[in-house]
Amino acid sequence: MCGIVGYIGLNQAQKVLIDGLSKLEYRGYDSAGIAVLDKDNAIKVKKRKGRLKNLEDELEKEALAGTVGIGHTRWATHGEPSDINSHPHCSIDNRIAVVHNGIIENYIELKEELIKKGHLFVSDTDTEVIAHLLNSLYTGDMVETLRLAIDKIKGSYALGILCSEEPDRMIAVRKDSPLIVGLGEGENYIASDIPAILKYTRKVYLLDNDEIAILTRDSVTVLDESGREAGKQVFNVDWDPGDAEKGGYDHFMLKEIHEQPKAMADTLTGRCFPDKIVLDDVNLDAETMKSINRIQIVACGTAYHAGMVGKYLIEKFARVAVETEPASEYRYKDPLVDAHTLLIVISQSGETADTLAAIRLAKEKGARVLAITNVVGSSIAREADDVLYTNAGPEIAVASTKAYVTQVGCMILLALHFGLLNGQVDEATMKRVTSGLKDTSALIEKALGDHDKIKEYAYDHFKVDDMYFIGRGLDYYTCLEGSLKAKEISYIHSDAYAAGELKHGPIALVDVGTVVIAVCTQENVFDKMLNAIKEVKARGANVMAIAKEGHDEIIPEVDQVFFIPQMDDEITPIPTVVYLQLLAYYLSVARGCDVDKPKNLAKSVTVE
Amino acid sequence: MCGIVGYIGLNQAQKVLIDGLSKLEYRGYDSAGIAVLDKDNAIKVKKRKGRLKNLEDELEKEALAGTVGIGHTRWATHGEPSDINSHPHCSIDNRIAVVHNGIIENYIELKEELIKKGHLFVSDTDTEVIAHLLNSLYTGDMVETLRLAIDKIKGSYALGILCSEEPDRMIAVRKDSPLIVGLGEGENYIASDIPAILKYTRKVYLLDNDEIAILTRDSVTVLDESGREAGKQVFNVDWDPGDAEKGGYDHFMLKEIHEQPKAMADTLTGRCFPDKIVLDDVNLDAETMKSINRIQIVACGTAYHAGMVGKYLIEKFARVAVETEPASEYRYKDPLVDAHTLLIVISQSGETADTLAAIRLAKEKGARVLAITNVVGSSIAREADDVLYTNAGPEIAVASTKAYVTQVGCMILLALHFGLLNGQVDEATMKRVTSGLKDTSALIEKALGDHDKIKEYAYDHFKVDDMYFIGRGLDYYTCLEGSLKAKEISYIHSDAYAAGELKHGPIALVDVGTVVIAVCTQENVFDKMLNAIKEVKARGANVMAIAKEGHDEIIPEVDQVFFIPQMDDEITPIPTVVYLQLLAYYLSVARGCDVDKPKNLAKSVTVE
Repeated sequence: MCGIVGYIGLNQAQKVLIDGLSKLEYRGYDSAGIAVLDKDNAIKVKKRKGRLKNLEDELEKEALAGTVGIGHTRWATHGEPSDINSHPHCSIDNRIAVVHNGIIENYIELKEELIKKGHLFVSDTDTEVIAHLLNSLYTGDMVETLRLAIDKIKGSYALGILCSEEPDRMIAVRKDSPLIVGLGEGENYIASDIPAILKYTRKVYLLDNDEIAILTRDSVTVLDESGREAGKQVFNVDWDPGDAEKGGYDHFMLKEIHEQPKAMADTLTGRCFPDKIVLDDVNLDAETMKSINRIQIVACGTAYHAGMVGKYLIEKFARVAVETEPASEYRYKDPLVDAHTLLIVISQSGETADTLAAIRLAKEKGARVLAITNVVGSSIAREADDVLYTNAGPEIAVASTKAYVTQVGCMILLALHFGLLNGQVDEATMKRVTSGLKDTSALIEKALGDHDKIKEYAYDHFKVDDMYFIGRGLDYYTCLEGSLKAKEISYIHSDAYAAGELKHGPIALVDVGTVVIAVCTQENVFDKMLNAIKEVKARGANVMAIAKEGHDEIIPEVDQVFFIPQMDDEITPIPTVVYLQLLAYYLSVARGCDVDKPKNLAKSVTVE
Repeated sequence: MCGIVGYIGLNQAQKVLIDGLSKLEYRGYDSAGIAVLDKDNAIKVKKRKGRLKNLEDELEKEALAGTVGIGHTRWATHGEPSDINSHPHCSIDNRIAVVHNGIIENYIELKEELIKKGHLFVSDTDTEVIAHLLNSLYTGDMVETLRLAIDKIKGSYALGILCSEEPDRMIAVRKDSPLIVGLGEGENYIASDIPAILKYTRKVYLLDNDEIAILTRDSVTVLDESGREAGKQVFNVDWDPGDAEKGGYDHFMLKEIHEQPKAMADTLTGRCFPDKIVLDDVNLDAETMKSINRIQIVACGTAYHAGMVGKYLIEKFARVAVETEPASEYRYKDPLVDAHTLLIVISQSGETADTLAAIRLAKEKGARVLAITNVVGSSIAREADDVLYTNAGPEIAVASTKAYVTQVGCMILLALHFGLLNGQVDEATMKRVTSGLKDTSALIEKALGDHDKIKEYAYDHFKVDDMYFIGRGLDYYTCLEGSLKAKEISYIHSDAYAAGELKHGPIALVDVGTVVIAVCTQENVFDKMLNAIKEVKARGANVMAIAKEGHDEIIPEVDQVFFIPQMDDEITPIPTVVYLQLLAYYLSVARGCDVDKPKNLAKSVTVE
């Protein structure tokens, strides 16, 4: 989710790098840096916390001269935003410089080994480990060295590498993080994203996992995993620059919806194992857990819905009572909070004003605060006692999608973790749920595969004034989130109801042609949902349902149905919400709304 | 929630049945029907989709002569409203006719079996299965037959049964649906509700689960589950039949809105004193209170909103954590409930199926149950450990008004009572709040005095498609209730939002002319509400506000404002909701809706 760019050619690298970074800044913008090989083949680095502008100001004072270089714009995961934690990272002798996008799972272990061997570390990042590791393994040939290093590294990475002893080439590799090679005339490029180099070339190689690219001024060689030359096809980019920023998608929201399989994998990486849950920045131990007699979850908007899923699952797995409250309500109500309270807050941006105020109030009363957020070093992350990062990468569209599914993913991890800490979760349950979590990326992919059918449903019904989402249990929270998405971007007046409450009032609104979205994935209430569907159908509603495969009895009862694979009930909120995101998206497009920037709304609500 | 009535005597059954159904129509009204045994002991049936009037028109063309009969008014569950799906349902040979309230869970299975045996089905209902089943099992004795049938039936039912081969008796049975037997002179009755037969008798038996009643003209025998005669007590009904009439108002709802000062006084009588709270049927003492570490409030619809007020006030006064949950969610989620839990349930009718199920679940786990209900002797009242009756009198309009304000009144009493029991409420607070409670009848009267101005606002805006209610703290719950009222009777798509959540999505819906009702009675967030009003005004909304006297600064910011007198913040939900009830009422009238009998809704939801 960081941005990478690299250049080797005859022109000054600095200009190309800054140019490329400016196109990537939307991916992350807590710091930026470049490394350039100077005329004496020494690596020179400049990097600055904050927006790219800060780095540019610095370079205006003193430019970095040279024709080979790498650049990086960062979205923090390990280590808060700072000059020191910015990329590129170098070996202490400055022989090797590295830019990195991804997460090195075993970096603590590698770091300890390297420290024992005498390597001195200056940053808190996982990336710095790569620079030191390459240096310690260096054989005189960076490709050979990189191959040795890869054997030791676990995790995801896209790497751009400079080595002062090999000044006429640049090396790159990727695994589970995107990286492309741009092909020029007497110059070549690397980039995490097409927009970064679109100004210079439209011919690219799309690197596959484990491929190593060796760039000189006049050639690009791509080797496959076994070291043989990979037969790469040139991909001709015909996107305009605006499309390219959106990865070829029409809107950021659609791009981010499609990024969810990767976002979920990044959320789980290094945390979710078949036989354990590892949450590095959550220091709550069994002893502290025992002293906690009340958990409160406080958040706003979409994050509040993730909190409701969290309440349900923590109560289910850990059997501790949890209360949820919108942050704006919590802070003004003299809440029951004390030293035996754990306050969990959720905020994509980590800057939500009401949520921040809730933290301060709770801390004043002695509560422990655990934050789930997407932004490392954000105010909320800094003020919380424990942090669980969603690792979703930058989210540009105002309507949250990948942040939400990763918040839900974090909540499942946390609920299991609590249950293991207090002995309420047995091994069988842990194995069952972690195995389910591991499937979520594939389950989201499967949901995305129904893309065209959802689009068709949306285009058939975009003229409705009102729509209702109904569900029970976990499905109800998915409905709340689906309804909010529809409100935010399509301006359709939508509402979500716990299906059992329909008869107590809301069913009066159902009439011939009313669109009702029925989420029916919870096995223990499937029959009740079928009854609710019959009731709204009897009043003339048009019903779109989501159910698990095997429930064919729903087919004759509804107008459209999407089936998700059989899975544990606790996992369903993740693939299910994808259908509702796509539905809201296509309703918005069909109605001609500004999908990414809905009227009246801002991405991050930093005022009350 | 259907209505049942039955007659056996010397007079024409049709008149008694139609009379009874007219009194029950509020329980369900998508179709009505009667079955009468004629002089040749043949069963004759008439039934019609729609209001009772349709059936009456039909009977005017051709009356059904006979002195034994059963009648039914329906609220559809299985099978859409239609002539065919209306009750009574008969066996194909017309030997047996049945009226039913409830849901037969295994009807599909039974239906398949019966079809295999050659039974021909004409409707989509679960009820028809009972007629065929009884016919297939018929032994010559309907009581014996019924017992065989009950063994096969799963679900809930109140049944009235006629058999052409046993023309001088009528059989009835109930399980989890209400049924009473009315005792006359040379004639007897069955009914799902007392009002149906109040005109004819005031002596009734309240049937318990699994009891079978055998009615002849001169005798009533009630058998218990084992077939032994059950020793039933005669219950003397002392209701005034005038209570069930509209008393000069256009609608029951308006009458009931105006009955609120009296209802509130009746709620407080004998309970609220300047220096103490006396709750006769609440036997929770300080010792028991100490053993309780969790309070859960469970209810449906309007009563659920009263529960939210209760949560806020119990936490405020007694400083004990309270969780609220719709009953339909609670019962299916494996809630955290044990012997240290107090479950508070709220139900106007005392028969709400989901709420009743929640009680049973909680009692099984050892919890203590306190019920707030309006109906003495109702199932919920009978099954709870402690009862607090709202004393609001019969509520006929489907949209609850006086039941709600009295539920809120009970909640204030209860919160104070708990706080006194556990020492969290001091004398000054008690005196302040009891004094405020004593004023509520007058405060409601004052709100009713603004009647014409609210009517005018409603008539100026009744054409809107959508409206939003915003508030914070206690005002938010009042908004939820106001919004539900608007939904129920005016069919305007309305929503309530905690005002602080507006910016996290819902404000996207606000456009030029959107009606926003802003409730601003809570002093600590008045300024925040003013900000929210400015934000929606900036997007073109038309704003009606309710605020306390003395806040004249609101006048230039809104289009209409109603001032309530200065009073404690905890009391405001009572007078404030009256404005929203009147608003919903006049919107409904202006839109030409059927105020007292909104489409799709029933007064008391006695099935899931």
